[in-house]
Amino acid sequence: MTDDSFENRTRVQTGTVGHVFRIIRDRGPLNPADIVRLSGLAKSTVSVNVERLVGTGLVREETRPGSKRRRLKVDEKAGFVVGVDIGQTHLAVGLLDLEAGVLADRREGLALAELGPEAVLSRVSAIIRELAAKTGADPSHLFGIGVGVPGPVDFDHGIPVSPPVMPGWDRFPVASYLSTEFGCPAFLDNDVNVMALGERDRGSAGRQGGFLWVKVGSGIGAGIVIGGEIWRGAKGAAGDIGHIGIDGDSTLCRCGNRGCLETVAGGRAISALALEAAKDGSSPFLARELGPGTAASPELVARGAAHGDEVCLNILMDSAKAVGNVLAKLVNFWNPSLIVVGGGIASIGERYVASIREAIYRRSTPLATSELVVRKTSLGDRAGLIGAAVLVLDEIFSHRNVGRLVREDSRGGERSDQS
Amino acid sequence: MTDDSFENRTRVQTGTVGHVFRIIRDRGPLNPADIVRLSGLAKSTVSVNVERLVGTGLVREETRPGSKRRRLKVDEKAGFVVGVDIGQTHLAVGLLDLEAGVLADRREGLALAELGPEAVLSRVSAIIRELAAKTGADPSHLFGIGVGVPGPVDFDHGIPVSPPVMPGWDRFPVASYLSTEFGCPAFLDNDVNVMALGERDRGSAGRQGGFLWVKVGSGIGAGIVIGGEIWRGAKGAAGDIGHIGIDGDSTLCRCGNRGCLETVAGGRAISALALEAAKDGSSPFLARELGPGTAASPELVARGAAHGDEVCLNILMDSAKAVGNVLAKLVNFWNPSLIVVGGGIASIGERYVASIREAIYRRSTPLATSELVVRKTSLGDRAGLIGAAVLVLDEIFSHRNVGRLVREDSRGGERSDQS
Repeated sequence: MTDDSFENRTRVQTGTVGHVFRIIRDRGPLNPADIVRLSGLAKSTVSVNVERLVGTGLVREETRPGSKRRRLKVDEKAGFVVGVDIGQTHLAVGLLDLEAGVLADRREGLALAELGPEAVLSRVSAIIRELAAKTGADPSHLFGIGVGVPGPVDFDHGIPVSPPVMPGWDRFPVASYLSTEFGCPAFLDNDVNVMALGERDRGSAGRQGGFLWVKVGSGIGAGIVIGGEIWRGAKGAAGDIGHIGIDGDSTLCRCGNRGCLETVAGGRAISALALEAAKDGSSPFLARELGPGTAASPELVARGAAHGDEVCLNILMDSAKAVGNVLAKLVNFWNPSLIVVGGGIASIGERYVASIREAIYRRSTPLATSELVVRKTSLGDRAGLIGAAVLVLDEIFSHRNVGRLVREDSRGGERSDQS
Repeated sequence: MTDDSFENRTRVQTGTVGHVFRIIRDRGPLNPADIVRLSGLAKSTVSVNVERLVGTGLVREETRPGSKRRRLKVDEKAGFVVGVDIGQTHLAVGLLDLEAGVLADRREGLALAELGPEAVLSRVSAIIRELAAKTGADPSHLFGIGVGVPGPVDFDHGIPVSPPVMPGWDRFPVASYLSTEFGCPAFLDNDVNVMALGERDRGSAGRQGGFLWVKVGSGIGAGIVIGGEIWRGAKGAAGDIGHIGIDGDSTLCRCGNRGCLETVAGGRAISALALEAAKDGSSPFLARELGPGTAASPELVARGAAHGDEVCLNILMDSAKAVGNVLAKLVNFWNPSLIVVGGGIASIGERYVASIREAIYRRSTPLATSELVVRKTSLGDRAGLIGAAVLVLDEIFSHRNVGRLVREDSRGGERSDQS
């Protein structure tokens, strides 16, 4: 997002073939005339580079019955990638095509706080092999692996950095572990960042303007997207909204501060409130359901709310209101055009998202909300693994890498004929 | 900041000469070899375009005694621009060179709430003529006029949009009024946005990464800079932090909401608290000073604090703490590398900024603040007019316009030879 990277990407690193591929990937299917218009390149240059891309198998013609126009798109079957979503209480792994369409996936429970990286990553590897065997995917066509984890990440090195909810993972080389295991590139990022990427490519967001992807689950966090790219901030800490303080609240958070949003409105807070309401009898539903052997959970509270239990409903609405009040402040500051809400608790229902929306609209300025859309993710609980796949695709299909993939001559390829 | 503008700027709109000029303007003085390296252009291409720029007078060689190396920079004397800073209680107008160095300026009191646009803009015009006469500036060398106002702006049309503190200014064609009056381009933006631009070019910020420029004066607002560019948000409302709500505070704000930061910590709040402390006698200093004919003001409170009056000191520190608490939330969300504080109240002293810094560090996550710098602006009360001049320079020296200025051949000029 700096001028430096801007210059680099467009002037120094960009091979023309990478530029053409980027346009086809972002906007395709496209006919050659569209590519000429969007790229500013000469017709002959576009033609040569399209042929090179078709030659490598990365791009194919889309055939539409009855149409003679040639339309080009990424050949989504030219290979596959793996998306891994490591959550505090779940693990999801998927095989996806080169347009991040899910070919096969598996989701299972996970007690992340109790498992170190070797245990989890060897399970991840086993699932990848299982899914590959099941789908008959050719291992040599595995282009890369993307992983999202619920904590801060040093993106360049592919390692978690002091993740509070992942004891034992600090600085473990997650990306290089999987890269070595499968002999392909691997990338690691924060879970909400990858979910935001998934929404951009496969959900309802698109690449224009700015949007927020807000996860409300065991933890609370946000991915910030500007012009199609993740904004990571100075230290990769951007989007850490779960630890924004609620003025005057003194609930002690695991981070050591008091009144953090997450500790008031996150999954653990909801479970704790449910347990309390069961014990003091204020919620007949919870008192009945929360016997020995049944753990309190946001899902249980949601069931109670659906059954008309007022305490359950209030617990959820208070959580939504707290999230919405924090987002209202961020809307005044950052004025996004779209907020997408996802994660375990948000997936409970439209009513939860509606309460968030209401709080935002009540407490932001009219100008900032005049065209703001607040909606639930359309990706459901696959948001994490789809996003992790998009992360890989963004990296392996960068201008520079596409140039390499087609073995572009490094001198000739950097000539950009714009006449 | 969108992919679209990205492609447009670099592939379609960019003349090579504009690209070379941008590098010289952003990074100069530079020798030709540096320009070749930074641009990715061929040596011969750089050479041709440098000569064209020198030919038009926009670029000159810098001569350093004893050095034979040719170093190129913007010829800051090739023309001049005007920067106008319209505040709630002040008007500042300056003539600046093409590197936004102040040639002459004037600052005077202004009761903005009582004056319509014609009255203020005719005064602005008179000051411009006065300063031009005084400095002997040739009116034909006036390249453009930039204006900052304390309210939301439709930047593309150069008009204020429902500005709460500028009755009578809604949709008044400020930019075209001045453009017609002086026969040059004119641009209008929100005051904190232009102050942020000034900090980028003439202050302590630079063009890399992300930073916030926070104004604490009669009003409170922030300019958000990403990779050297202002982030305006979906509706141009980004940075409106003065109306972020403080949880639990019920002070009624002029915007109709309750507990807005500005209404708790801004200039009017400080003056109101001072008046109260004078009336109830809790501040001996204020009781003595605030007789008939003396209005309460943040400056007076600052004088009291400097004299050791505890109530005055507390009023200021409470304001700084409230600002810092809001900024702490935004630091968690956006993770900037730098926060620059300016505006009338912030200029009161280092102690005020120190209290803001302390509140941010206490209530943000350690990762987000690990390299965060919070400092007072180095531009003082000229931040607004310097920024308004930089706004003009950014616009008139865009790639497209520089291409026009040197009457570049539109076909040949868009060829980019990168071999």
